[in-house]
Amino acid sequence: MTLSFELLATAGDARLGRIDTAHGPIRTPAFMPVGTAATVKAMRPEDVRATGADILLGNTYHLMLRPTAELIARHGGLHKFMNWPGPILTDSGGFQVMSLAGLRKMTEEGVRFRSHIDGSYHMLTPERSIEIQYLLDATITMAFDECTPYPATQSQAAESMRLSMRWARRSKDAFIERKGYGVFGIVQGSVFPDLRRESAEALREIGFPGYAIGGLAVGEGQAQMFETLDFTTHHLPTDKPRYLMGVGRPADIAGAVARGVDMFDCVMPTRSGRTAQAFTRTGELNLRNARFADDPAPLDAGCACPACTGYSRAYLRHLVKAEEILGMMLLTWHNLQFYQDLMAALRAAIAGGDNLAGDPEAVLRRLLPAATA
Amino acid sequence: MTLSFELLATAGDARLGRIDTAHGPIRTPAFMPVGTAATVKAMRPEDVRATGADILLGNTYHLMLRPTAELIARHGGLHKFMNWPGPILTDSGGFQVMSLAGLRKMTEEGVRFRSHIDGSYHMLTPERSIEIQYLLDATITMAFDECTPYPATQSQAAESMRLSMRWARRSKDAFIERKGYGVFGIVQGSVFPDLRRESAEALREIGFPGYAIGGLAVGEGQAQMFETLDFTTHHLPTDKPRYLMGVGRPADIAGAVARGVDMFDCVMPTRSGRTAQAFTRTGELNLRNARFADDPAPLDAGCACPACTGYSRAYLRHLVKAEEILGMMLLTWHNLQFYQDLMAALRAAIAGGDNLAGDPEAVLRRLLPAATA
Repeated sequence: MTLSFELLATAGDARLGRIDTAHGPIRTPAFMPVGTAATVKAMRPEDVRATGADILLGNTYHLMLRPTAELIARHGGLHKFMNWPGPILTDSGGFQVMSLAGLRKMTEEGVRFRSHIDGSYHMLTPERSIEIQYLLDATITMAFDECTPYPATQSQAAESMRLSMRWARRSKDAFIERKGYGVFGIVQGSVFPDLRRESAEALREIGFPGYAIGGLAVGEGQAQMFETLDFTTHHLPTDKPRYLMGVGRPADIAGAVARGVDMFDCVMPTRSGRTAQAFTRTGELNLRNARFADDPAPLDAGCACPACTGYSRAYLRHLVKAEEILGMMLLTWHNLQFYQDLMAALRAAIAGGDNLAGDPEAVLRRLLPAATA
Repeated sequence: MTLSFELLATAGDARLGRIDTAHGPIRTPAFMPVGTAATVKAMRPEDVRATGADILLGNTYHLMLRPTAELIARHGGLHKFMNWPGPILTDSGGFQVMSLAGLRKMTEEGVRFRSHIDGSYHMLTPERSIEIQYLLDATITMAFDECTPYPATQSQAAESMRLSMRWARRSKDAFIERKGYGVFGIVQGSVFPDLRRESAEALREIGFPGYAIGGLAVGEGQAQMFETLDFTTHHLPTDKPRYLMGVGRPADIAGAVARGVDMFDCVMPTRSGRTAQAFTRTGELNLRNARFADDPAPLDAGCACPACTGYSRAYLRHLVKAEEILGMMLLTWHNLQFYQDLMAALRAAIAGGDNLAGDPEAVLRRLLPAATA
């Protein structure tokens, strides 16, 4: 039953592992591209797979509103609907409905909110969130929680976290166990060590096959995020995967892996790809910049993706300036490839005994060095 | 020198052939996807090739303004710049600058116009158009002409056509001959048999390795277009390819092939793909339509493209409604595949002695029958 996690190697706090699921294995540390509306924007799923991604993330909030979880269930679940046979993790919808300032009302029962699409009223509770994720056929279901806003006082953070812990219990109770599927609990507690410990212990008491760390990457900055990880991951079981939600930039990921995190998701590579920003081995490039107008070099000489092997920076900039869809397609592909290259390099480093200690930007440059001409 | 054309078979007026070029062969009848701004919109070039396309069309007007022909020349020509190693035909820019009502002034010398991008002034003459197409490294260069507006009186059409014939002479004189490259003349004369004959004879007198038929698909309707083809193609040499510019819908193409046309281009499949219109073996479908919301069937059961083999109509409609880029990508791919499947079916029919006579819609249904469940 549930998911199985195998810890294959450690180096300091960094961990190399594998999660086996009903939809295939996930090599960890893993980066999950975000496929909000049943598509990783501007990418075909087979091309996302070709970058090295093992698992995608889908968004419960968007899918419940359009095309609806019931429709996706009628069409065989999200894997079949979007033509991605591999594992899919869905969020609980909590984060997104909490963001609907003025359009939602929270109670002990759950959150009542209005759709951003047509203004219709909906209710999300732990039970309904778990039901939707079941209808979507999520490989990994997330417990319904409140992502505590930042900054919060300790008493605000405690109240929010304890509500999330009660919802975590209800989420676990509502989850229907199936072989190779599982539900993850989410640690909250903002930046307060006592609250993070209390939250982790509450979740361990309930018992989950994986633990997420929520409420970070919400404005606290990298230093405080790392500090919070430092006093949080030690309270989590070593034999279960750990997922840092919504993170992040490449250096954030490198630093979090060094602190014992196994899974990540972020819209950064895909959103940046649609706004002409590229992550490369020589830094982040803005392809709108006139200095690339006549640049015959590839985007990233160390990258084997189609954008880097088939085109010049001059061509990519032309596509961006002409607002051509192919520009978004190629830059998205490259950014996803860069992120997966980073994850592969992190896994190889841990396998070789590298504990990834030190300045994460330096770790990044060491693992993904700029190609020499 | 120049291009070579081999006529492999005929059936009635329909022709099966092959053009050999410096960038590879073109199987005729051929459909050329339009790659206006050095990209077939929403498609990677290798995927365009995978649909069966042998040759693309590029637009001189757009490319001369952005990124400029000189920049493309510095980057090794359009083939290398856009990663399409196969043949490319470029138009002369004439059609597009003539469409800039109020922003252009025509004289015997050429056309002075203002850029739609930044309002800057430019001049296109036969000599400059040919130079730009040389800088782009066009496999097939088009003579600079005026696409006679429709409707036109016979004297307007005659004056316009005779200007185009003088420009055709200047275009041919300006063209630099290279092995496997060529310049095509363009027959004008609106819907007037005497003018079309006069134009065809004037071009044959100059001598070209291929002849285009211009000034059609401009509002005259399919019946008059076919009638004009009927009295035009007989004046063209049988040993040279014939290109009907800017055509068209599938039935237009089937009917024109039956009348001896070898080459086509049209934005229809790509533009329709971006506006949720699909060409299928069961007719044209609008994927915005609510009747597809829960339809588990593939877009076109007879099609082997990724959109048809990987997804349901329900999923494609979801992408369209959610304004997802993947919707435009998949529908564009499908439409290009449909057009290339049509061209392959036309070629196979001619090879088998089918003269494609009769109602072109019936020919279409006969060549691309709806798949049975």
